[in-house]
Amino acid sequence: MELTEIKEKIKNFKIEVPSWGFGKSGTRFHAFHIPGEARNVYEKIDDAAFVNKITDSVSAVAIHIPWDKVEDYKALKEYAEEKGLKIGAVNPNYFEDEDYLFGSLSNSNLKIRQKAIDQTFECIEIMKQTDSKILSMWIPDGSNYPGQIDFNKSFELLEDSLKQITRHLEKDMTMLLEYKFFEPAFYSTLLFDWGTSYMLSKELGENVKVLVDLGHHSQGTNIEFIVSLLSQKKKLGGFHFNSRKYADDDLTVGSLNPYELFLIFVELNKFFDLSAESQNQKISLVLDQSHNVKPKIPAVVQPLNNLQITYAKSLLVDYEKLKQAQENHDVIEAEEILKEAYETDVREILREVRKEKGLPEDTVKYVKESEEYWKMVKEREEF
Amino acid sequence: MELTEIKEKIKNFKIEVPSWGFGKSGTRFHAFHIPGEARNVYEKIDDAAFVNKITDSVSAVAIHIPWDKVEDYKALKEYAEEKGLKIGAVNPNYFEDEDYLFGSLSNSNLKIRQKAIDQTFECIEIMKQTDSKILSMWIPDGSNYPGQIDFNKSFELLEDSLKQITRHLEKDMTMLLEYKFFEPAFYSTLLFDWGTSYMLSKELGENVKVLVDLGHHSQGTNIEFIVSLLSQKKKLGGFHFNSRKYADDDLTVGSLNPYELFLIFVELNKFFDLSAESQNQKISLVLDQSHNVKPKIPAVVQPLNNLQITYAKSLLVDYEKLKQAQENHDVIEAEEILKEAYETDVREILREVRKEKGLPEDTVKYVKESEEYWKMVKEREEF
Amino acid sequence: MELTEIKEKIKNFKIEVPSWGFGKSGTRFHAFHIPGEARNVYEKIDDAAFVNKITDSVSAVAIHIPWDKVEDYKALKEYAEEKGLKIGAVNPNYFEDEDYLFGSLSNSNLKIRQKAIDQTFECIEIMKQTDSKILSMWIPDGSNYPGQIDFNKSFELLEDSLKQITRHLEKDMTMLLEYKFFEPAFYSTLLFDWGTSYMLSKELGENVKVLVDLGHHSQGTNIEFIVSLLSQKKKLGGFHFNSRKYADDDLTVGSLNPYELFLIFVELNKFFDLSAESQNQKISLVLDQSHNVKPKIPAVVQPLNNLQITYAKSLLVDYEKLKQAQENHDVIEAEEILKEAYETDVREILREVRKEKGLPEDTVKYVKESEEYWKMVKEREEF
Amino acid sequence: MELTEIKEKIKNFKIEVPSWGFGKSGTRFHAFHIPGEARNVYEKIDDAAFVNKITDSVSAVAIHIPWDKVEDYKALKEYAEEKGLKIGAVNPNYFEDEDYLFGSLSNSNLKIRQKAIDQTFECIEIMKQTDSKILSMWIPDGSNYPGQIDFNKSFELLEDSLKQITRHLEKDMTMLLEYKFFEPAFYSTLLFDWGTSYMLSKELGENVKVLVDLGHHSQGTNIEFIVSLLSQKKKLGGFHFNSRKYADDDLTVGSLNPYELFLIFVELNKFFDLSAESQNQKISLVLDQSHNVKPKIPAVVQPLNNLQITYAKSLLVDYEKLKQAQENHDVIEAEEILKEAYETDVREILREVRKEKGLPEDTVKYVKESEEYWKMVKEREEF
Repeated sequence: MELTEIKEKIKNFKIEVPSWGFGKSGTRFHAFHIPGEARNVYEKIDDAAFVNKITDSVSAVAIHIPWDKVEDYKALKEYAEEKGLKIGAVNPNYFEDEDYLFGSLSNSNLKIRQKAIDQTFECIEIMKQTDSKILSMWIPDGSNYPGQIDFNKSFELLEDSLKQITRHLEKDMTMLLEYKFFEPAFYSTLLFDWGTSYMLSKELGENVKVLVDLGHHSQGTNIEFIVSLLSQKKKLGGFHFNSRKYADDDLTVGSLNPYELFLIFVELNKFFDLSAESQNQKISLVLDQSHNVKPKIPAVVQPLNNLQITYAKSLLVDYEKLKQAQENHDVIEAEEILKEAYETDVREILREVRKEKGLPEDTVKYVKESEEYWKMVKEREEF
Repeated sequence: MELTEIKEKIKNFKIEVPSWGFGKSGTRFHAFHIPGEARNVYEKIDDAAFVNKITDSVSAVAIHIPWDKVEDYKALKEYAEEKGLKIGAVNPNYFEDEDYLFGSLSNSNLKIRQKAIDQTFECIEIMKQTDSKILSMWIPDGSNYPGQIDFNKSFELLEDSLKQITRHLEKDMTMLLEYKFFEPAFYSTLLFDWGTSYMLSKELGENVKVLVDLGHHSQGTNIEFIVSLLSQKKKLGGFHFNSRKYADDDLTVGSLNPYELFLIFVELNKFFDLSAESQNQKISLVLDQSHNVKPKIPAVVQPLNNLQITYAKSLLVDYEKLKQAQENHDVIEAEEILKEAYETDVREILREVRKEKGLPEDTVKYVKESEEYWKMVKEREEF
Repeated sequence: MELTEIKEKIKNFKIEVPSWGFGKSGTRFHAFHIPGEARNVYEKIDDAAFVNKITDSVSAVAIHIPWDKVEDYKALKEYAEEKGLKIGAVNPNYFEDEDYLFGSLSNSNLKIRQKAIDQTFECIEIMKQTDSKILSMWIPDGSNYPGQIDFNKSFELLEDSLKQITRHLEKDMTMLLEYKFFEPAFYSTLLFDWGTSYMLSKELGENVKVLVDLGHHSQGTNIEFIVSLLSQKKKLGGFHFNSRKYADDDLTVGSLNPYELFLIFVELNKFFDLSAESQNQKISLVLDQSHNVKPKIPAVVQPLNNLQITYAKSLLVDYEKLKQAQENHDVIEAEEILKEAYETDVREILREVRKEKGLPEDTVKYVKESEEYWKMVKEREEF
Repeated sequence: MELTEIKEKIKNFKIEVPSWGFGKSGTRFHAFHIPGEARNVYEKIDDAAFVNKITDSVSAVAIHIPWDKVEDYKALKEYAEEKGLKIGAVNPNYFEDEDYLFGSLSNSNLKIRQKAIDQTFECIEIMKQTDSKILSMWIPDGSNYPGQIDFNKSFELLEDSLKQITRHLEKDMTMLLEYKFFEPAFYSTLLFDWGTSYMLSKELGENVKVLVDLGHHSQGTNIEFIVSLLSQKKKLGGFHFNSRKYADDDLTVGSLNPYELFLIFVELNKFFDLSAESQNQKISLVLDQSHNVKPKIPAVVQPLNNLQITYAKSLLVDYEKLKQAQENHDVIEAEEILKEAYETDVREILREVRKEKGLPEDTVKYVKESEEYWKMVKEREEF
């Protein structure tokens, strides 16, 4: 690919940021206070707007319901638009209501199940008002002990709930089914791997697809192969970008094993043009991190940079030559073609792109030295 | 369940034993010689017959092609029948031919791929001659390094090969698709989890099902849930019974985490009557172990005992009461109902069953003291 | 072992229960309210006393500082004693103070480090006042990202802090060093495995030992071997009993893989007499669970039963015969000797023991039907 | 670090290559023939010499006994020296002799144990004759099933054997104790983690150290922390470089997760000067790969390049600035300092270094196009 084309693609490469990435978060042991945390959805949008101002690479702000509940969603949408942002994926929360102790959409208590369904309908309503097209479903239902649930009944109930919900979706809306290996259900999780989400997405129809969260796999899983397979079967709907060492650590994407991230992008490029205008609504690219020890805004700027680096490198791969090496079963050559791209220092390209856009060249450093940023932190700490 | 009914079920509970369980095996470091190893398929059938004589719980002998290749398969079948046995699942071997260095049924070298397909046709031919109804496919294809294969092309080629093979199956034949997390391909494996096998089984039709090998999952996987889900979706075709600590260790089934095995049987009982006459061809239950440090025949008798213990316990579960506890979300009660069955000492039941059948009551001990066994060992060592 | 001796041993087999096992707990996603939760340390002692009344198998109540902070520790001790209980291990909490965001005893900010040391001194003071002999240290220090900490400096600082603390211990006090594979530090944890704890325990002296928490190992770890090795080297100091499927799930001990628990007890019996009077202070046996979906008191009674079952089975092992089989390299025989004990239904023994002690025979069921229990639950819910 | 200094360091950075890396290898399923495989130790030395001729970065050839047994070791040493090479670590093989079915240095059969000890004495003799200073011990002893071995007795026997062996070492000889999480013993391995090797190295004395094989850890282990800790405690003796996805895959070092490798080198640089002249005998850096699908010589040249890239990047780290960021608890800054070095394209530096040394600039490509190489392959295939 020509350098100008690569630069053009990077210019249009946008990522959705999560509202919850700007607020307080923590582990089960403690949620430490980090100065500057956003305290409500408007501050979260302010923060996303600030990030976008210096990076021009935020496509939208994903919201979490009920965390981001407001009286007037049209007003919320307009607030975002004034700041140059859109509302992205709507994420219903099935893990916090006291009623969901034994499950939400799969609860054998039909009253509670209905509550979870109704709550999702409400999210679809919010989507209409905020012009969001993605219903991003993470269903934590499962069990902590052998015998606790009837696997089959629970799965059937979940499937039935999802069918009801799917029927409420408008034509241009997509439901994404996230999966997660474990936690908060420790013994069994109904949607525990890509296969469970894929199975349901097949039964639920074309506007239901699978969401890959990079931290939701068992150790040793080849994620890039899953990405490739789901793409091939037209069932890859989106990503939650983060990183992990052992479990669902929700660390900064690119902070551990960046080569794996690169290999994932290599597969994505075969199916998607990830530069924004063309990819719109085809694949949802969302940050999903939990910054326990990092200040929030820098902790969003940093992974955007990591993703741009990775995307740029993946564009440098000589895919034709790679195919040829694969045909020849030339294992070393195929690897070296990938490494040829991966080892390239693409930061100069990013700096040029930013310069041409009038953005700060070193975005991470910029935040650190930004008066606006520190003023905001100070103000939030004063109240 | 009444004790008499349980005893009846155990009497009819049969397991297929693998021909390769009686021969030499080892790790990549060394295959130690264990006195008494069978040296050809006829000795393997002799051994299976000996095991069956003292346990009356062998349903058939699974064979591996080309390891068990013979001139005359009808003769082989008759040899087995004379010994009171049938030929069970036929297992084509896709990992040993020098041509398969870069894959078999997914090889982008079409000549090699055709060879793998033809070899499978040959196995179907063997099935016809031996009256086997199960084609048990473990396809080790994958890659060792990033870039080595084009995931999508490889998967497409595999799918196409399987389609061709499926068309050759007779109506009462079933193809089982085994999956395996890794090894011998270390970076990617095309059928690496239940989802990949399930996906293909859906596309290939009703007589293609999924085979679960207990050692082929990533650490922490809830296998009983997979078993339950596949059963519910009518895609569970069979088992390879073994045990593992970390990877695909192929240890004696029941030797590690017997409670997990019990929980798997609890799920199976909800969908299948595992006692032989009724289960015939509905679900294939096969031992698949690699006895690196145990003498071969005792190492087949021991797991048959483990499986009987586990099956008996699983029959003792009060499934109605369990359902009730699940409805009530009474987690502790549900667990205790399972434990009530699991903690029961069922060995007295097994001894009674064996007594009624005229079999040795302690089968493991019996082999150890059997003159016939030691004579056989001695004879094989002399040549 | 004779049945009477076994019964005697079980009668004297006591476990320490954690104060935090009776209070509210949860995952990072939510801490669901479970009716009847204890709301302060006195209610926790009440609950432990109730458990002891019906099981006679509680040795003491472990406390967590600052969670269980009170004005007058002597009064707390007396309150426990009136209820027939002792104060057990004192557990300093290094994860909740806002100052510990970047570490406690290893913090390179020396003021914060000193605070953590002082806090530990305070715990030693509490030990003196409550007559506790065990300082149970879980130090969560580590890092979330590469580069965050200087491994060596952090380890040195930790070592130095522990040296200072060790000097403050009285002669009959023992410091236990718990290790944990990960969480809340996701990238690195200073005491991440038995080796790190062992290394420090060697450098710190004889009254520093290692604590094994069953949920704190990487997948596939052979815990019974670690137990055996630490015992052999006189460095095993105690246990936190729980169970897990994948990570540090803190589930009911014995609820998953009870055979592994049995194998751990088999090793313990070779070094320790776990029946209470003799084992006092030699090895600390403490429950450490987080009951997210179970009512608290039943969730402590149930694992005590599980531990008694496991201990009873482990006493049934014919250790002499096992040694003989090991000498003969008779792998199957050795396994069968273990299984002989494990498959035995010991619940009748437990019922007899309880009858002889005048306790309810089915303790789990007893709580469920106890008016006293339900009255307590009701009262706590009313305020 | 100045560029000239970096180049100087890279020029002197040498790696030991394993004789077994040039011969046939495979998985337990099959060892495929790869054209050009060396068939004896002389051909292996030829191959190592060829690799050194084009890379000038081979410090020595590690040998495996009995695989590389010859009549005259002085002659072997001279053969190597004529080719510009030394004999490196001597690796006794404890896994292949039929007598070692139930263990070698820990075998409770004292005759077999003595055989293993004697065999090691023989290796020390070989060291004397070949002027090797490193005895590299990988002891696969352990068990496949619960009960199979008495953990304590086995460990004691192993310890005693090692004591005897240590006494035979000459003053300037070092014994390295490798550890491995599992395989070929699947249930327990005596030296299964760094802690077991460290424990023994402490008891055995100063010339016993720990060897880290990158593929021998459980999933999720932070290897760089282990490296740092062992270095700090003066017990890090060396490396076996390779890469893995799940288990001990023995893939090309740097082929998966190269960032982890970089982080390991970052720790190493704090304790060792890895450039050859100064590091000699202080730390043993050895390739240990099993090239199942790659031609052998290219498969050694490629990782040498990967290691040079990684080493060069690790030299670029601004360690002073990193310390400062760590002191400030500036997590993002610390990460970015590491990334600043990691993202740099160092290949131009390597090309310059090679140019200055008169070597081919692209070593991987060079082999592919080398007439000498293809002639050798052809010749070996003809016989």
